[in-house]
Amino acid sequence: MRQSINLSWLDSMAFETEINGKKLIIDADKEVGGTDRGPRPKPLMLVALAGCTAMDVISILKKMRVSPDTFNVKVEGDLTEEHPKHFEKMHIIYEFKGKNLPEDKIEKAINLSQERYCGVSYNYRNAFEISFEIKILED
Amino acid sequence: MRQSINLSWLDSMAFETEINGKKLIIDADKEVGGTDRGPRPKPLMLVALAGCTAMDVISILKKMRVSPDTFNVKVEGDLTEEHPKHFEKMHIIYEFKGKNLPEDKIEKAINLSQERYCGVSYNYRNAFEISFEIKILED
Repeated sequence: MRQSINLSWLDSMAFETEINGKKLIIDADKEVGGTDRGPRPKPLMLVALAGCTAMDVISILKKMRVSPDTFNVKVEGDLTEEHPKHFEKMHIIYEFKGKNLPEDKIEKAINLSQERYCGVSYNYRNAFEISFEIKILED
Repeated sequence: MRQSINLSWLDSMAFETEINGKKLIIDADKEVGGTDRGPRPKPLMLVALAGCTAMDVISILKKMRVSPDTFNVKVEGDLTEEHPKHFEKMHIIYEFKGKNLPEDKIEKAINLSQERYCGVSYNYRNAFEISFEIKILED
């Protein structure tokens, strides 16, 4: 299957695209000549990973009849200092809040995402290290 | 340097994040239980690549005093059919429109981005093949 996007230059460092029918402007920091009208490109790599695995996990948990009160996925990425500034590792923190959440099912859902379903994790893992941790908090 | 994002579950398959101070909702297709309130995660991988190299190229061209009338960056990504559905290649099309645009400078700017500056290209190239082409159109 093929996916494609088109990015159009607006002015200075600002560009506009449409993803699944939604407009998105990306832009650079003011310090490097941008006008800060939208996010920078690299954090979108973090969001792609967080979103991919988060959607897997919540849909697997739904099938397991596990419903957390809150669910957050944080991704931290470490960039090199030298050009080309690229990620050399990413760490995912899955955080759940709820009453009597079943740790074993949550772990299973995350492992299924990381090992079988999440294509973004699969792609990134071929380029750098990905680690994760799970936090389960009582409401 | 560390970058981080936090994705918060809204409901069903919808999640919200903030990138460089801008809110972004990501969501799944209605056919898989989403409500289509925002883009899917995988196209964000394409936008990260397009944005990274597009910002390099336009800022290098500015230093070279080259100013196209329009500039578009299209990225096509081919996904595997099997789980985990991941990109096995991406192709970038750089398209410029303007009067008497200098092909040699444009090629140089793109090569500098691909070989020296664009960290997203560097990361992805460690995971799969990236190819590109350049289209220069007269106004």
